[in-house]
Amino acid sequence: MNKIEHIGIAVKDLEFSNVLFEKLFGQSHYKIESVESEGVNTSFFMVGNNKIELLEATNNESPIAKFIEKKGEGIHHIAFDVNDIKSEIIRLEKEGFKVLNKKPKKGADNKWVAFLHPKSTNGVLVELCQDIKE
Amino acid sequence: MNKIEHIGIAVKDLEFSNVLFEKLFGQSHYKIESVESEGVNTSFFMVGNNKIELLEATNNESPIAKFIEKKGEGIHHIAFDVNDIKSEIIRLEKEGFKVLNKKPKKGADNKWVAFLHPKSTNGVLVELCQDIKE
Repeated sequence: MNKIEHIGIAVKDLEFSNVLFEKLFGQSHYKIESVESEGVNTSFFMVGNNKIELLEATNNESPIAKFIEKKGEGIHHIAFDVNDIKSEIIRLEKEGFKVLNKKPKKGADNKWVAFLHPKSTNGVLVELCQDIKE
Repeated sequence: MNKIEHIGIAVKDLEFSNVLFEKLFGQSHYKIESVESEGVNTSFFMVGNNKIELLEATNNESPIAKFIEKKGEGIHHIAFDVNDIKSEIIRLEKEGFKVLNKKPKKGADNKWVAFLHPKSTNGVLVELCQDIKE
């Protein structure tokens, strides 16, 4: 794993939270993106070399809606940048982690992504991500 | 804010979790430290330029014990590195954030630290930290 690619934060109201986090970081978000397959609207902030991703559910079946219902707003996941997501999935499964996406799927920000089940990682939802190269 | 200084993860059993996160990151923790005033044992991992801090409670009154009781193990806080923690506290209070430590206190890893109340930051416990220079 190369670095923290981003931290995902579940929010109820993206418009409200964009203003809040703009005040927190002293700078505006640089991108807004919807990921229909995940039922989320996202916005991205840069803090140094790290990204913060705010996630708002677009429907009640969205994983973000379910997370907020259960736990309230807050930190949702940590994403780590990897060079080769497929080999990392194989390595982590061998180590005993439960990989939720054996085949990486397309996520926000032009990435291949796969998640590890929080039950196998001390309650932390871990995302692996790799840049999609055309 | 310069960068994510670290992400704090609340764990029940530091010894167990050190092995787990060593498998996850493919490398061992580089430091163990106790912060008596906070009632925690901590260990630190590097992932690229970012640190991950595991936190285990040393007594039932520790904030980490209370967090785990309420929410279970998982991501506890995000810490951001700042140049001047005192002026950052003043700036954030003016912006409407609730600062829990108006006077910075000594945290792990030789830092001055201050926390923002999660109610004012979308459920995210935010830590500010600044290196202590002797």
